[in-house]
Amino acid sequence: MVNQRADVGWQSSKSDSSGVSNSGESSKESSRCSTPVLDADRTDRLRDKMKRRIESGDHWFSLEFFPPRTASGAVNLISRFDRMGSGGPLFIDVTWHPAGDPGSDKETSSMMIASTAVNYCGLESVLHLTCCNQTKEKITAHLNKAKRLGLKNIMALRGDPIGEDWVEEDGGFNYATDLVKHIRCEFDDYFDICVAGYPTGHPEAESYDNDLRHLKEKVDAGAHFIVTQLFFRAETFLRFVKNCRAIGITCPILPGIFPIQGYHSLRQLVKLSKLEVPEEIMQVIEPIKDNDAAIRSYGIQQAVEMCKVLLASGEVPGLHFYTLNREVATIEVLRQLGLWAEDPRRPLPWAVSAHPKRKVEDVRPIFWASRPKSYIYRTQDWDDFPNGRWGNSSSPAFGELTDYYLFYLKSKSPKEALLQMWGEELMNEGSVYEVFTNYITGQTNPSGHKVMCLPWNDDPLAPETNLLKDELEKVNRRGILTINSQPNINGKPSSDPIVGWGPAGGYVFQKAYLEFFTSSENVTALLQVLKKYEPRVNYHIVNVQGKNITNAHEMQPNAVTWGIFPGREIIQPTVVDPVSFMYWKDEAFALWIEQWAKLYEDESPSRMIIQYIHDNYFLVNLVDNDFPLDSCLWQVIEDMFALLDSPRETQEEGSQS
Amino acid sequence: MVNQRADVGWQSSKSDSSGVSNSGESSKESSRCSTPVLDADRTDRLRDKMKRRIESGDHWFSLEFFPPRTASGAVNLISRFDRMGSGGPLFIDVTWHPAGDPGSDKETSSMMIASTAVNYCGLESVLHLTCCNQTKEKITAHLNKAKRLGLKNIMALRGDPIGEDWVEEDGGFNYATDLVKHIRCEFDDYFDICVAGYPTGHPEAESYDNDLRHLKEKVDAGAHFIVTQLFFRAETFLRFVKNCRAIGITCPILPGIFPIQGYHSLRQLVKLSKLEVPEEIMQVIEPIKDNDAAIRSYGIQQAVEMCKVLLASGEVPGLHFYTLNREVATIEVLRQLGLWAEDPRRPLPWAVSAHPKRKVEDVRPIFWASRPKSYIYRTQDWDDFPNGRWGNSSSPAFGELTDYYLFYLKSKSPKEALLQMWGEELMNEGSVYEVFTNYITGQTNPSGHKVMCLPWNDDPLAPETNLLKDELEKVNRRGILTINSQPNINGKPSSDPIVGWGPAGGYVFQKAYLEFFTSSENVTALLQVLKKYEPRVNYHIVNVQGKNITNAHEMQPNAVTWGIFPGREIIQPTVVDPVSFMYWKDEAFALWIEQWAKLYEDESPSRMIIQYIHDNYFLVNLVDNDFPLDSCLWQVIEDMFALLDSPRETQEEGSQS
Repeated sequence: MVNQRADVGWQSSKSDSSGVSNSGESSKESSRCSTPVLDADRTDRLRDKMKRRIESGDHWFSLEFFPPRTASGAVNLISRFDRMGSGGPLFIDVTWHPAGDPGSDKETSSMMIASTAVNYCGLESVLHLTCCNQTKEKITAHLNKAKRLGLKNIMALRGDPIGEDWVEEDGGFNYATDLVKHIRCEFDDYFDICVAGYPTGHPEAESYDNDLRHLKEKVDAGAHFIVTQLFFRAETFLRFVKNCRAIGITCPILPGIFPIQGYHSLRQLVKLSKLEVPEEIMQVIEPIKDNDAAIRSYGIQQAVEMCKVLLASGEVPGLHFYTLNREVATIEVLRQLGLWAEDPRRPLPWAVSAHPKRKVEDVRPIFWASRPKSYIYRTQDWDDFPNGRWGNSSSPAFGELTDYYLFYLKSKSPKEALLQMWGEELMNEGSVYEVFTNYITGQTNPSGHKVMCLPWNDDPLAPETNLLKDELEKVNRRGILTINSQPNINGKPSSDPIVGWGPAGGYVFQKAYLEFFTSSENVTALLQVLKKYEPRVNYHIVNVQGKNITNAHEMQPNAVTWGIFPGREIIQPTVVDPVSFMYWKDEAFALWIEQWAKLYEDESPSRMIIQYIHDNYFLVNLVDNDFPLDSCLWQVIEDMFALLDSPRETQEEGSQS
Repeated sequence: MVNQRADVGWQSSKSDSSGVSNSGESSKESSRCSTPVLDADRTDRLRDKMKRRIESGDHWFSLEFFPPRTASGAVNLISRFDRMGSGGPLFIDVTWHPAGDPGSDKETSSMMIASTAVNYCGLESVLHLTCCNQTKEKITAHLNKAKRLGLKNIMALRGDPIGEDWVEEDGGFNYATDLVKHIRCEFDDYFDICVAGYPTGHPEAESYDNDLRHLKEKVDAGAHFIVTQLFFRAETFLRFVKNCRAIGITCPILPGIFPIQGYHSLRQLVKLSKLEVPEEIMQVIEPIKDNDAAIRSYGIQQAVEMCKVLLASGEVPGLHFYTLNREVATIEVLRQLGLWAEDPRRPLPWAVSAHPKRKVEDVRPIFWASRPKSYIYRTQDWDDFPNGRWGNSSSPAFGELTDYYLFYLKSKSPKEALLQMWGEELMNEGSVYEVFTNYITGQTNPSGHKVMCLPWNDDPLAPETNLLKDELEKVNRRGILTINSQPNINGKPSSDPIVGWGPAGGYVFQKAYLEFFTSSENVTALLQVLKKYEPRVNYHIVNVQGKNITNAHEMQPNAVTWGIFPGREIIQPTVVDPVSFMYWKDEAFALWIEQWAKLYEDESPSRMIIQYIHDNYFLVNLVDNDFPLDSCLWQVIEDMFALLDSPRETQEEGSQS
C-alpha cells in the first residue's frame, strides 16, 4: 500500500519490512556506533566523496602544489593553502622530488607539507610518491610515515630514472603499477590511490595504445582515480577518455589543467613534459612573449574556454589544476567557471582538521579561535577528541607550546614588517594601546603603516568581529587590550554569510564573549563591578603566575556557540572551558615575549614595556549568558571605567556594600 | 591586589595561585573527570544534601510510608509517591516488618517498594532494616540486595523482639548499634545510615539518660543522622536535642511529626509506641471524637503550630512526617508551612531516576514521555546511560516489555473503570476516535464518564499538551489518534511554569512534535503531502510488522528539547531517535492489545475492532525542525485531509508529479 522507496527523499531503515525481533537486532548495532558527524565529508574517503559528487552532478576542482625550497617559502605556501582552501577544493596534492629528501622531517619536505595541509589546514591531501630506484623497505617506511601523519591518499608514480643507464630490475619497482600493487599488498584498502594518465601517450611509451594498456594495468592493480598530464585542447582529453572507457577503465579521470602564466614557464614545462604546444596557441603567444600581463590574461581565457568544453561534455566530474604554487590565475579561472566557493559553507565555526583521528571532533575551547594551528599542535597526541560535549572528553593535558618557530605557527610577516606595525620604539604602555587600537580600526600608525596582525591574531579582523568594531576601538584606546571576541547571536539562519555554519535549514546561536589583557588596577575595579552582573556574566581572570579568579560554577565549561539543525542532535562547537583557559593563558602571555618583546634589544625600553605588561597585566574573559538580550559586556567595561573615574571615597564605599 | 575569595560568588580553581606547571597538573585531572551533571543533588549522598541545605538555611521535609498489604495497594502507593514526590521531599523512607517477608521480591515487600521509589519515582529513599533475631548472613544478604537495587540509605533499627522470652545473644544483633557497626564493617562508607531517637526515652530504656547514651553509641558507631519518634510538644523535642548536643551528638536530628488524623488511629499509635498524649490535646479531642473531619482539622492545626515553633528554634533543619500512607493531612501541613514545592523546579523535562547508575543520564527518546517507568524498566540493564548526546551512548538494546502486569507499569484504574472510560462495547473504528477525542477534551462520554487515561497515557493531559488542545481535538475526531505531542518553544525562560526546566537564568527550546496512530489510507495521503515539507519536517512511519518509512538523515537522532544555561554546556534531554522508535513501536502497538483489547471477550466485536487497528494502522511521528516559526504540523494534517477529500484524479495526478 505504501509506496516505499518511491521517492529520493526517503530512506528506509535497516529493519525495513523485517519482522519485530529482526528489527530489534539490526537496531542494536546502529545504536552502538551511531556517533553523529556533522559533515559526511569528514568521514568519507576521497573515492566516496568523488562518488557522491559524481552522483549529484556537482563538479569539483583540485589543486597541485610542489614543495617549497626555503623555510619562508613553506610559511607562504601554508598561508596559500588556507586562502585557496577557502575556495573549496575537493583535494590538493603535493609533488615528490626524490632528490629533495621528500620523506624527511624538514619543513620543506613533501611529507611535511602534505601533513601540514591535512592536519593544520584541514585539506584532503594526496601525497605523490615515486618508486623508481627505491627499495621496498624505503617505500614502505614512507607509506607508514604518511599513514601515521594522517595522510590517506597516494599518487603512485614511477618517477624519472636517475641517470641514463637505468634498466628494469627483476622484482623491483619498474613501473607505477608495481607501486600500486605494493601499496595494496602492504596496506590493503587503507590508501586511496591515484595514478597518472597521458592524453597524448607517455613520452617513453612504445605507442599510445600500449600506454593505454599500461594505464589499465595500473587501475586494475587497485588505483581509484586518474589525473592526467596537462594538454592544450579539450578534444585531446575527450578522445583519451573515450579510449580509456573503450578498454574498460571505469574510474574517474580528471583532466590536468595548466593555465598558461608566462612565456618562459610554458617553454620550460613543455620541454620537461615533452609536449607540443599547438600552433594556434603559439601564434597568439609569440607576438606578446614579453608582455607577462597579456600572456597571463590569454592563459586564463584559454583555460576557461577549454574547461567549459570539458565540463559541458559530461565526461568530466572535476578539474585538476597545476597551480605552479601561484594563486591568481587558477582562482580567476575557477571564478569564471563558477567553481570557486565564494561563500564556502562551514561545517563548524572553526576549520576542522582532516586527520582521520579528529573526524568526530566537534567541540573546542574558544581561546584558540585565532590560533587554530596552535590548538591542533597542542592536542595532536590526544587519543580521543571531544564530541558532543567538551566535558565528556577524556582528553589528556595540552602539549607544551614552546616551538613558536614551527613553520605553521610562525607569523606570515617578517621581523621588519612587525616592527613597522607594532612600533620600532615604544614610549610607554600607551604605545601598546595604540597598536591594539590601530589593529581594530585599520588606520595607519604614525609611521604610516597599517597594523595587519597582532601576536594573537595573524590575520586582519574577522568579519564577525567587525560587527563589534566601534565598541572594540573605544575600549582598546583605554587599555582593554582585546584579543578575542564574538557578538551574541539569537538564532540566525545557518546560511548567514557572517556567522552561519553547519547544514542548511538550521539556526546558530552565540553568547557574547570578550577576552582581553588589562592592568591590575582595572581588574580591581572590574571585580567590584562584576558583582552587579551575577549570575548573568561568567568571568575568568588570571595573571601570568596563574592566580585565577572565577565565578564558573563547579569549573564547568560554558557553551558559547551552538547550532540547531534539521534531523540532528545539538552541536555546540565552542566552549569557554576553565581548565583549558589555564593552558591558554600560558600561551597568551608567552606571545607577548616570543612575538613582540623579542623584536627589541635586551634591556631596551621597548622590551621592558612589553615585559612589564607580561608580568603585571591580567588576562580576562567575560561571557554574557543572556544571549537573547543585547550584550551587557560593554556596559560592564563602562561601569568599570566609571568606578575608576569616580572619587576615591565612592570606590571604597562600593567595596563595603 | 585582587581580593580573592572575598565574595561568596567567587570560586577559585584548584590551580589558584600555584605556579604554571602546577596548574597544568591539577587541570589534567579535572579535565578527565569533568562530566557535567545538571543537578548536584543527583550525585550527592543524602548526608551531603543535608549538609548543603543546613548551610544554606533551606528547611526540608521527609515522608515515611509503610509497605502496602495488597498488589492494588502497591499500585496506589506508587502513584502516591509520584504525587507526593512533586512536593519536593528530601527523602522518603519505607518501614520494615519482619513478619511480612520485607526483603522478598513480592510487589508488596519493603525492599520492592523502596526500590521502586528510587528507580521509578526518582525519590531519594531510606530503607528501614531491623536486626533483632536475624543472622548476620541474612542481614548482609538484605544489604547486598538493597545496594544492587540502587538503595543508598538504611535506617538501622533493633526492631521488636518476637515473643516475650527474648534474651541478648553473644555476638548477635541485640541493639541497633550492632547493626550500624555491621553495616560499616561490611559495606564501609557505602550506605548513609539513619538511627532512631526517642525524645522521651525509649520505652524499654532503664532511664532517659541511659537511652541518650545508647543513642550516642549508635552515632559513634557510624550513623549519619537521627530521626525521632513522634511527640506532641515542641519543647519535648527541643530539650531532647539540647541533651543530645550536651553529650556530644553533633549529627542532624530530625523531629518525627505525626499529624493527628483520627481518634482511633491516634489511640492505636499511642498504645503501640507507649507514648502519653498530653492532657491539653486529649481535652480538645475527646469531645469531638466521632467527628473525623474536626479531628483532622485540629490535627493539621496542631502539627502546623508545633512545626512553626520547631523551625523557629533554629535547631531543626528538616521535618520528618509519619504519613500513615495518607497524603491530605501531611500535604496540608507542609503547604501551611510553605515547605510544599508548589512549582517544583525540574532539573530536566522528565523525572530523573535516583539510581546511582543513572546519575549522569540526561538524554532520552521522546517516545516514552508518558511512560517513563516503562523506559526505566526497559533500560535497567544498561551499563552506561546517554549523557550529552544520545548518539554517543554505547547503550545496548532495550529490554523486552512483556510484563505489563508489573505493579509500577499497571494502570491505576481497575478494569471496570477502564471499560466505563473506553466503552463497554465498541461499534466501529469511530468509537475509538471518540475515546481519544474525549480524552483530549475532558468531556464525558455517552455513558457519562470522563476519559481520564489511555493505554499510552495513564494520567490526564499534561499542562504543556493542553496548549495544543483545540488542534488535537480536531485531528483526533478524524482518526489521527494522537498519543504524544509537544508544542514548539523558541527560548522561554527556564523558570516558565509550564515548559521550563533546569537551573535558573536559562532558556528552553523545543521542536514541535506529534505522534499518532492512523489508518493506512491516511498514511498514503500523508506521504504524498510530506514531500512538500522536505526538509522542514522529519518523519518516521511504521506499522506493527516493522515496515518503516522515514526521511531521517543517516538515521541520526533529532534533538527536540534543549536548554541553554549560564556557565554550562548545552543540555538536550529529549531526542527522536530512529532506532529507539523501532523498540517503542513494539510497545505502543502491544498496548492496544494488552490494555484495551483484553478488556473484551475473545472474538467479541469490540475486541476485533481493536485488533484490526493494531494490525492495520501505522504509528507516525512528525518533527517540525523550524522551531522559531509557528508549527506546520497541523497544516501537514490539514493538507492530508484536503488531499483525501479531493476528487480521485487530483490524488493520482499528485502522485505522478
